[in-house]
Parts: sequence; structure tokens; C-alpha cells
Amino acid sequence: MESPALGSAAADTAVDVEAAVNAMGDRARAASRVLARANRAWKDRALRAIGAALKANEAQVLAANAKDLEAGRANGTSTALLDRLALTPARIDGLVDALETLAGLPDPVGNVVRGQTLPNGLRVRQVNVPMGVVAAIYEARPNVTVDIAGLALKSGNAVILRGGSAAAHTNAALLDILRDTLDSVGLPADAVQSVDAYGREGANALMKARGRVDVLIPRGGRELIQNVVLNSTVPVIETGEGNVHIFIDASADEDMAVEILVNAKTQRPSVCNTVETVLMHRDSTVLPAVARALAARGVRLHVDGRTMAALPDGVSAEPATEYDWATEYMDLEIAVATVDSLDDALAHIRRWTTGHTEAIITNDLANAERFIAEIDSAAVMVNASTRFTDGGELGLGAEVGISTQKLHARGPMGLSELTTTKWIVQGEGQVRG
Amino acid sequence: MESPALGSAAADTAVDVEAAVNAMGDRARAASRVLARANRAWKDRALRAIGAALKANEAQVLAANAKDLEAGRANGTSTALLDRLALTPARIDGLVDALETLAGLPDPVGNVVRGQTLPNGLRVRQVNVPMGVVAAIYEARPNVTVDIAGLALKSGNAVILRGGSAAAHTNAALLDILRDTLDSVGLPADAVQSVDAYGREGANALMKARGRVDVLIPRGGRELIQNVVLNSTVPVIETGEGNVHIFIDASADEDMAVEILVNAKTQRPSVCNTVETVLMHRDSTVLPAVARALAARGVRLHVDGRTMAALPDGVSAEPATEYDWATEYMDLEIAVATVDSLDDALAHIRRWTTGHTEAIITNDLANAERFIAEIDSAAVMVNASTRFTDGGELGLGAEVGISTQKLHARGPMGLSELTTTKWIVQGEGQVRG
Repeated sequence: MESPALGSAAADTAVDVEAAVNAMGDRARAASRVLARANRAWKDRALRAIGAALKANEAQVLAANAKDLEAGRANGTSTALLDRLALTPARIDGLVDALETLAGLPDPVGNVVRGQTLPNGLRVRQVNVPMGVVAAIYEARPNVTVDIAGLALKSGNAVILRGGSAAAHTNAALLDILRDTLDSVGLPADAVQSVDAYGREGANALMKARGRVDVLIPRGGRELIQNVVLNSTVPVIETGEGNVHIFIDASADEDMAVEILVNAKTQRPSVCNTVETVLMHRDSTVLPAVARALAARGVRLHVDGRTMAALPDGVSAEPATEYDWATEYMDLEIAVATVDSLDDALAHIRRWTTGHTEAIITNDLANAERFIAEIDSAAVMVNASTRFTDGGELGLGAEVGISTQKLHARGPMGLSELTTTKWIVQGEGQVRG
Repeated sequence: MESPALGSAAADTAVDVEAAVNAMGDRARAASRVLARANRAWKDRALRAIGAALKANEAQVLAANAKDLEAGRANGTSTALLDRLALTPARIDGLVDALETLAGLPDPVGNVVRGQTLPNGLRVRQVNVPMGVVAAIYEARPNVTVDIAGLALKSGNAVILRGGSAAAHTNAALLDILRDTLDSVGLPADAVQSVDAYGREGANALMKARGRVDVLIPRGGRELIQNVVLNSTVPVIETGEGNVHIFIDASADEDMAVEILVNAKTQRPSVCNTVETVLMHRDSTVLPAVARALAARGVRLHVDGRTMAALPDGVSAEPATEYDWATEYMDLEIAVATVDSLDDALAHIRRWTTGHTEAIITNDLANAERFIAEIDSAAVMVNASTRFTDGGELGLGAEVGISTQKLHARGPMGLSELTTTKWIVQGEGQVRG
């Protein structure tokens, strides 16, 4: 099955996009049945073959990427976005390494979640099985195409992709390699498909394909994710937004506070687990050291009145507004508020959190326990950098994304979050009394 | 906080229903924080107090129920629906017993899902915590009001209810008892609220309260569930529809086939785990015995041509159409098709299943294994009645419903399916390298 031609020709003609996407879903379902029964060795062989094919076809991928980059520059795309869009031999090596890592992970399929023999002799067990058909809608980062396809394959799922149109040539080249390689190892090419040729209408049809698509994962900025969440009838896993807080309690150690804050803000400011707001207990004395350390690393401070008054000489800051409490800067900026108590810190966090990660720096056991119990976020930390909210760091192996919703998966999602379960009941004629 | 007055007066006035429901969600969120930290003993005390209050106020509940029944009879409501709507002292005793059972179950909150000490010394664990605010939209079965409120309470969640308008007086009486009792044991009354006073608009606002409501569970017929699934932006768990199949393989034992079929069809025909279609292998010889046994119990048969030709004397049947393959009769009716092979049985099931439960009756190991592997349903059974797809039967204790979707919960849902998880990370200053 050829992937549809590039461009919006399909949408311009009388082709019914919804019917085409539904047919794609049906082919994905058929492919998923083969994938679901493929054993780990087979799937790992496919992952390694995809890695080898990416290297073998590197020139072709880079040529396609050059077209996207050229079009992007002609459209005035920002340097930051062009950087996300760009592939290089080193970045392709990174994708190949990630596929190799994935091949080395245990198979999430077939794991027995629980089981027992019932009093009537029935043997029951609940086992992990693939979801079936997963879909991803994401922005112009072509690495996501390979990343999601690999995760879906390892977890025994077929996948339907919708990448950003700015990466259309690159994604089409990658899709060809993925499909050809699956075919070459005896797995169905339709395990990886794309609706990119149908443009926005394709994305809309994908969001409405309930029953054909089992779960939809949006990856990208707030606008993309909210659009998917509000318009999809397919179950969605909301990922990513992190308005992350660190509360520095009265008993916080100064060196620890400085080290954690610098790490949580500056180690990689553009990701979702970076800290965005610091809440400083009024009795803490660490503000001058923390403020100096952040300023020395180029972090712009947005602070409330009490914090402003307590800043050390030589550190400047802007007055914070509600905008700052609400904002996920994802940059070298941070908001700082002084609070009177743990209760006030909890209230601030409850008002502004996105439920991703919050941390307390303290030496007070009761306060640590209250923080753990009362913060309702995917990850709660005591005396550690918020940057640890990450599938790799927490020992999940690969990471599908970081869920900020409560249904199905919360926090870093690993391969097992791409599976569901099946009850298997075996007897010898048992009936219900 | 008083529950809103009955009737549609609110919707007739300038009251902004959406704002009112959102405010209700905010009160539920505040109440959920108290519930989340209530220990098991406290919650169990509340459950038992609710049971005692139901008995103490039985006359008041039955009087309210009599009003609903009278209105139902005046509206020409069917006897079956009136029966679902009716409460009796015996049914109230049943609710009290269920609350007592619930109090006897382990607390799902605080269970450690997994945990380890990382190489850098961080102690990480993932624990079950309450969802927060759950909502339920259901039809005119007032027992669901108490049932869902009890399950939510035990799992540490606040709940917002939307019952059928036909049960409005009964539900209002039950709500008063629930709220007063929570208050009497020191738990927030706002842990149980209802949007019933806002009619359909209230239900619509509830479906759009994403962020305020963490999960929405519809309970009722197909139309209600599809309406919720298609219109809700709150994550939904789809429950209940069961077009259940049993495949009788060539090697099936006759006595076992008869016993399982009679149990799966007639023990309680109106529920979702009852069998609706039998697929008979053409080489099986059990059809006459199965058909006679079902007919003797008043089951109407809808059969394909080959089955019709093979029916024994004295057993009549109607010709089956696609309607019969698609239908969840929930009554003493069954569809029967003769198939040439396991493959044909799998194909039929794939086309018509709702993904609830399917069973094979066989003595062929390879066929049993293929059936288990290739059927993509919440429960797959070998030589057992499909009636076992039930939270109580499978050892889950209480049952919230039976999920037919793949996200979060699949098959019978117990108390732990009303929880989510939280990652807790504890260190002594660790930062990411």
C-alpha cells in the first residue's frame, strides 16, 4: 500500500478524507493483529533494521529535510523552529541509538498484572496486551516520527502519524523507510501510516476515529494539545505542560537550595520539568544566594514585592504579575514569590499548577510529609531537582511522554502505558450459581 | 451548602448553569482534598453511617420514591422501567449490605504500585491516590446514587451525580441523607453533590468541566453512553455494552456446551455479560442438545440457514439477519450461526463484537490458545460461562462498572480503577547531571 501523495491535492478533489482516514484505520487494525502476536525477538529485529535503514538512506533523508528547511527559511520560520526541524548525521545517529536502546528493553506485552485460582477452580489472570491502534499528532520535529513509530512497534501497536506540515518532506522520507523496513522483516507496512497528505482535515478525521483509533497522543505546544483534547472523540492522553514549582521551606539548606534551583532552572530550560516558580518561605535566609546564583547564569527574575525588597545588591528583577505565576517560560526566566507558610505555598501551587511536578526543599519532616500528601501533581519531590520527572531517570526505559492527566497514565509514560489489559479466564465447564 | 432546589426553575432563570456547575466542581475539589487524606477507618465509619441513615430514613426515601413512581405511571412509563425505578425495604437493605461489603474491602489509596532506590540514591515510588473529582451520569435507577457515592467515598474521591429526571424525588432524598451523614462524621457534605436541579443543561456542563472533573462514568443504555462519549471533554470511561459471543468448537463436550449456554443466556438475561450469539462449528454435533435446552427455557432462536437445516424436531427458530448479529438482546433471545472453522468464528466476532467478553468451548489446546491470543476483548474465556465477567466473581470486591474501552481500565473495574497514581521522589539534594 503506497502512502498517499504529498500536498493538499487529495483534499482539493472529491476524495472523502474521513472515509480515507477510516480506511487507513481499518488497515492499521489488521496490521495491529499481526503486531500483537509478534514476539519480542521479531520486533527487536525490526527496530534494529529500521536503525540500519536510516543510516543507509541518510542522504535521502537529509535531502528531504533540506527541502523542508529551505521552505521554512522562505516562510520566515524562526531559528528556534528551524533548529527543531533540522536533521543532521549526528541527530540521525541519536535516533538509531534510541532504537537500539528500545530493542534492549523488556517486552511490555504478555506481562501478567495479577492472577489467581478462584474458589470454583477458574484460573483467571489479567495480562498486558497492545492497545491496538495508537495515533500521534505532533509538531515539526521529524525525530518524533521515528521515536513514536519505534515505541508503538515495541509495544505491539500499529500507529497512525500526523506530523507538522513544515516537516512534510522529511516525514514522508522517514515513513517510506519505516514501511519498507517493516515489510523487509515480514511485518505489515501498514503498522506505520500517516495522514499528512490530508492536511488539517486528516488530523480532524483522526481525532474523530473513535473505535478505529484506541488512543491519541498529542505532542507539542499548549495550543496543539488543547485543540486535540477539546476536539477528539478518541481517548486522549494529555501530555507535557509543566508550570513547575519549588517551595523553599524555612529550614532549607542554602547549598542544597542553590544547587537544586540552578539545576532545575538552567540545566535544560526548554523542557517541561524545568522549574518556573520559586516560593520562598519568609523565614528562609537563602534568597540572596539563590538569586545571585540564578542571575549569574543569566536567569531573569520576576519577583513579588517582598522578594524585591530582600534581593541582594547587584541582582535586578522585574515586578511579577499574574502572568508570571501562570507562565511556563521554558526559558532562562523564573518567577519568585515570598510566602508566609507552607499553607500559603500550597495555596499558590493549587491555584497555578498544571499538575506536572512540584518540589519542596526542607529539613522539616512534618512539612515534607504534608507536601507529599497535599500536592496533587504527577510527581512530588523532596530535596531533589524537578528535572528527574523523566521516564529514563525514573527507570522506565523509553519515554512516550509525560502525562498531566489522571486517567490511564500520570507522569512519565513508558512502554507499558502503550498497552491495555485483557482478562483471561480458563475453566472446565464452570457456570455461575 | 444546600443542594439546589428541585425542578427546572434554575434553568428558567438567568442563572448561568455552566458557572453553577463549575462552582460545584470547585467545591467538590475542596472536599476531595479532605477525602484524599481521610484514613480507611474514617471512610468506613462514614459508609456504615450512611447505611444506618438509609434505614433510619427509609419512610422518607420510600415516600419520595412513591412520588417518582406515581409520576412515571402517569407518563405511561413501562413496567420494566418502573421496576428499575422502584425502591422497597428489601432493596434498601440490599444497598445497606453493599455499603457494609464496601466497608470491609481494603483501601485502594496508598497502595505502592512500584518503587526502587535509583543509582544516585533517590528513593522513588509510585502510589495510588484518589482521582479527585469523579462524576457519574446515569439513568433512573436510584440505587446507583448510593452505589456510586459509596464507591467514590471508599476510594477517597468527591463525586458529582446526574441521575435520570424520572428518579428526581428519590435521588434528592438520597442526596440529603448522604450529605447529612458525611457532615455528621466530620467529612465534607460537598463530597457528594448533584446537578439534577439543572436538568439537561447541568449534564452538558458536567461533560464540559474538564480540569474540574477528573473522570466521567456514564451508566445506562447505549444512547446515554454514546451521548456522553461523543460530547464530553472530560475523560470518559465507556461501560457496559456487551454483544457477547460463544464459539462451540468441533471438539466441544455436549454436556459442557449445554450447561454453559443455558447459564450464559438464561441465568440473568438482562445484563451485559449474557451471551447474545452462538457460533457453532459445522463439525460439532451438540446443536440439537443446545437448541432443545435453550428452547425449553423459553429462549427464542434466530438462526442462519445452515443452523435452521440442522435444528432438531420440535425446536423452531426465526431466520437471522444482520440485525441479529449486531444486537445485544438482553432478553431470552439468541442468534446462532454455523461456521466452517475457528478462522470464520474469529472473523464473525471481529466484525460484530463490542469487545466485552467472548468464550470458546473446546477440547483442542491449539484452538484455545489461538482464541485467547486473537480475540481482542476485555475478557476471553475457555470452557466457562461468560457470566463470570463481573468484578465480584473475578475477585475485585466491589464493581464500578465494566469498561469496554482500552484506556485506564478494561473489563470489570474495582475500587483501584477509581484511583490514579502519584510519583513520590525523595532525596538529599540530588540534581540531574
